[in-house]
Amino acid sequence: MSVWIHRRSEADIAAEAGQARGELAGIRLAVKDNVDVAAVPTTAACPAFAYVPERDAAAVAALRAAGATVVGKTNLDQFATGLVGTRSPCGAVANALRPGFVSGGSSSGSAVAVAAGEVDIAIGTDTAGSGRIPAALNGIVGIKPTVGVVSTAGVVPACRSYDCVTIFARDLALADQAMGVMAAGAPGRAWPADVRLAAPPRPVVAIFAELPELDTVWRSAFDRTVAGLRERGARIVEVDPAPFLDAARLLYNGALVAERYSAVGEFVDTHQHAVDPTVGSIIRAARDLPAHRLVSDLAELERLRAIAMASMAEADVLLVPTAPFHPTIAEVAADPIGVNSRLGTYTNFCNLFDLCAVAVPAGMAGPASFGVTVLGRPFDDAVALDIAALVTGSEPPEAAWPLRIAPVHDLVVFGAHLRGQPLEYQLTELGARWSGPVRTAPRYRLAALDTTPPKPGVARCAEGERGVSVAGERWSLSPAALGRFLAALPAPMQLGLVELDDGTWVTAFGCDAGALATGKDISEYADWRKALRAGAIG
Amino acid sequence: MSVWIHRRSEADIAAEAGQARGELAGIRLAVKDNVDVAAVPTTAACPAFAYVPERDAAAVAALRAAGATVVGKTNLDQFATGLVGTRSPCGAVANALRPGFVSGGSSSGSAVAVAAGEVDIAIGTDTAGSGRIPAALNGIVGIKPTVGVVSTAGVVPACRSYDCVTIFARDLALADQAMGVMAAGAPGRAWPADVRLAAPPRPVVAIFAELPELDTVWRSAFDRTVAGLRERGARIVEVDPAPFLDAARLLYNGALVAERYSAVGEFVDTHQHAVDPTVGSIIRAARDLPAHRLVSDLAELERLRAIAMASMAEADVLLVPTAPFHPTIAEVAADPIGVNSRLGTYTNFCNLFDLCAVAVPAGMAGPASFGVTVLGRPFDDAVALDIAALVTGSEPPEAAWPLRIAPVHDLVVFGAHLRGQPLEYQLTELGARWSGPVRTAPRYRLAALDTTPPKPGVARCAEGERGVSVAGERWSLSPAALGRFLAALPAPMQLGLVELDDGTWVTAFGCDAGALATGKDISEYADWRKALRAGAIG
Repeated sequence: MSVWIHRRSEADIAAEAGQARGELAGIRLAVKDNVDVAAVPTTAACPAFAYVPERDAAAVAALRAAGATVVGKTNLDQFATGLVGTRSPCGAVANALRPGFVSGGSSSGSAVAVAAGEVDIAIGTDTAGSGRIPAALNGIVGIKPTVGVVSTAGVVPACRSYDCVTIFARDLALADQAMGVMAAGAPGRAWPADVRLAAPPRPVVAIFAELPELDTVWRSAFDRTVAGLRERGARIVEVDPAPFLDAARLLYNGALVAERYSAVGEFVDTHQHAVDPTVGSIIRAARDLPAHRLVSDLAELERLRAIAMASMAEADVLLVPTAPFHPTIAEVAADPIGVNSRLGTYTNFCNLFDLCAVAVPAGMAGPASFGVTVLGRPFDDAVALDIAALVTGSEPPEAAWPLRIAPVHDLVVFGAHLRGQPLEYQLTELGARWSGPVRTAPRYRLAALDTTPPKPGVARCAEGERGVSVAGERWSLSPAALGRFLAALPAPMQLGLVELDDGTWVTAFGCDAGALATGKDISEYADWRKALRAGAIG
Repeated sequence: MSVWIHRRSEADIAAEAGQARGELAGIRLAVKDNVDVAAVPTTAACPAFAYVPERDAAAVAALRAAGATVVGKTNLDQFATGLVGTRSPCGAVANALRPGFVSGGSSSGSAVAVAAGEVDIAIGTDTAGSGRIPAALNGIVGIKPTVGVVSTAGVVPACRSYDCVTIFARDLALADQAMGVMAAGAPGRAWPADVRLAAPPRPVVAIFAELPELDTVWRSAFDRTVAGLRERGARIVEVDPAPFLDAARLLYNGALVAERYSAVGEFVDTHQHAVDPTVGSIIRAARDLPAHRLVSDLAELERLRAIAMASMAEADVLLVPTAPFHPTIAEVAADPIGVNSRLGTYTNFCNLFDLCAVAVPAGMAGPASFGVTVLGRPFDDAVALDIAALVTGSEPPEAAWPLRIAPVHDLVVFGAHLRGQPLEYQLTELGARWSGPVRTAPRYRLAALDTTPPKPGVARCAEGERGVSVAGERWSLSPAALGRFLAALPAPMQLGLVELDDGTWVTAFGCDAGALATGKDISEYADWRKALRAGAIG
């Protein structure tokens, strides 16, 4: 079958899985065959190109270290050049759900292995949409992180500057977990100090004002998705698709394809008969492109990006259909370049613009799986993840994967900044993520301060004095967000360490001693909401 | 004379200067003639290329808005392609101090106009060292900011990805001020949330383990500079120059020069006789470079940068001689490419590695002005500035220019974090900058808390209660540094707003109310250091 290029025996897999320890123990993993697995040939779907790596790629090593078991290496569009899943001498990969239709590519085998239930998670790669198109066409989830945050060490390059390692899974929770393990275990580009760690409660979602190349029944499916988001509280704004789609065209029609020649051009030149004819024609055409044209294309890309980013300045994310239609394998064979190009309408610009993406299923478009992609600014991976959850109608994941790798501090709040209370917005506007209820050690007292709105004064009791365990909530936020929150905090509120009932100390709300003295003691409630309900405040 | 390509009459200058308002009123400004001044031709030292811009370049507009008066447009190596100052049909610019010797370039006229006292400040540009080499050879200061932080709108591109707008002045204080005005008024690339705003009190300075191309007497001058830094408290570490110098060679010997063809190649192709022969030969040679070679050169550059940055990981900055020797105009004429290339030994890699730089005079190398450059990581501009001040033996500037544009918060301290006190290092390690003494409004009390080391408890007095005006010191730090400082702050210390004697409120130290109650009141001193001296603490 064409999903696998190399597959281990079930006996081998079972033996390794039996030894596995870690949070991914028992999880079966497929690896796209342009990503190294130690001692197994890496072919990039070109047998003549094969080499046997000594070590796992960094991303594979991270997942294995957490207990995942490699089932095998999966088929792909050769050298990850394609979005169709048919450009492989190992055979076209058929769609998991619709016989005769393409799987999408280039991570074709990885996506189908997940969709068919042969594995739980799979590693893909994504330059032009290879981690998203096959997710959409096979009804699964694909997370494409911000460019560079997962190491590409041990990955055969396609376009080195834009290649990303991605994760496929059948649901968002497992994809999120696997991406967290991979990003933390195979770190690349550093995370900045002001990452947003959650979508706001009422996110603003941009959509394109026109949707070219989208089949009518697909258009209806997209409209339903947008209507669902609106019902769940999102505000929808329209943006001009022109700068995005112009950039998308630069990926193959401009000089950027020289990156593909730089990666494998010499091999392609000297192994003409070993290379897929479509893939070979694309890569060879890049040989004679002049460097000054690459320079001007990159300048044009920067210009388009500035316009595009400005157009979505007020939005948290951009929502697009992942694929605009679903071609048959025969249709691709009849027009291999044209059909491929149309498939990439809504994916090609993403990595060029340094966006992150989460592709999720969104019902059916007639007989085809329909999917949408939530695109976020660089390092807004948690924001995109939350809004992807909103698309699917599920709760946002408890701990979005960037919390495992981005710099994060915690802040415990006791009153007006609790969820649903009047000042919660001051935290959500800074990208803070709600991380659940906590209680202080039983050594504090709680007062209602004489402020507007009323605020809690929490202070530690003196040795020997009887205290209570005050109820609070924990938020996670970036170092810069914590600094900004503090700098904007009005007197008499202060921040400092408070002891929790598990013995840990965490930054939390305190207050000026003078203000505490004039506040009203409400320690008997030990819980701001309870005191509110009892009418003890204000 | 060859310094000026266009010079306004003294009457015009005086008329405009008389109207000038702002912090730079009375300051005379020269502008390199590849930077637009409204209604004056921009020639880039190629009269056939000339156009008359309608608007000032963003950088020029920023300085004029603050009161600076444009004196004229200065000569340069044509299209800013050169480090010698002789590649101009408007004539070679002679050195301001040594007749017969080069001025250095490409910002030749700008540097000489400053050195000769014709202007106070001048705008230059810098791709390969054009804002540093002529500073060194004419005994003045040149600040080359982090790539992109000053807008290049209205600048004729040389290598668009690496071009920087720079400032020349005779001393560091004025250069710092002008750069601050320019960076704040013509912002480009955004400043991150974790910028270091000062060098640490005892900085670590990297130098190259070998110094190729450096004349013997210049080597002695460099050694004296390093010895002086050591005396003033710097720790010196050696790094391998190989990755830096390999990158420097890529700028002209690799495919990066295609950026120059992209900028002005078509003009050069169609105006052969209007172009300087050396400049023309460099730019024309870039026409046929293949794009895939640019891709591989950029990959090589990234590889070299990773090695270079890792090698100086423990250092705050890298110190290099700015120029390795001082050629005569005749020597350049005899070997225009070779001499130019040798001049760029210690400058070419800087912008390719995304470094910032401050070039300062450092005595004499025989009869020549000797200069060194302090190179910092991206956005470490304030760190480089402070260490450049240390090189010259002067105090660090009170308010380094990045404080005008980078996101900054203030924090007032009262005790162990005062300058010279035991916990000062917790702030300097975070890149905080000391910003002078302050006093609270006379409404606070001060206690010595029962902590190790003793810490100050500052709390606001109740209405009607008599308070004192507590002495403190203000530090400026990035939002991320403030967040990190708070997250690491041990109990019972807290941070929140405190009122100063000028009526403003600023984030400052407070403490838990319980701890305050058990502290010792030392309000009568209203000053931690006085209380220490009086033996009232601990």
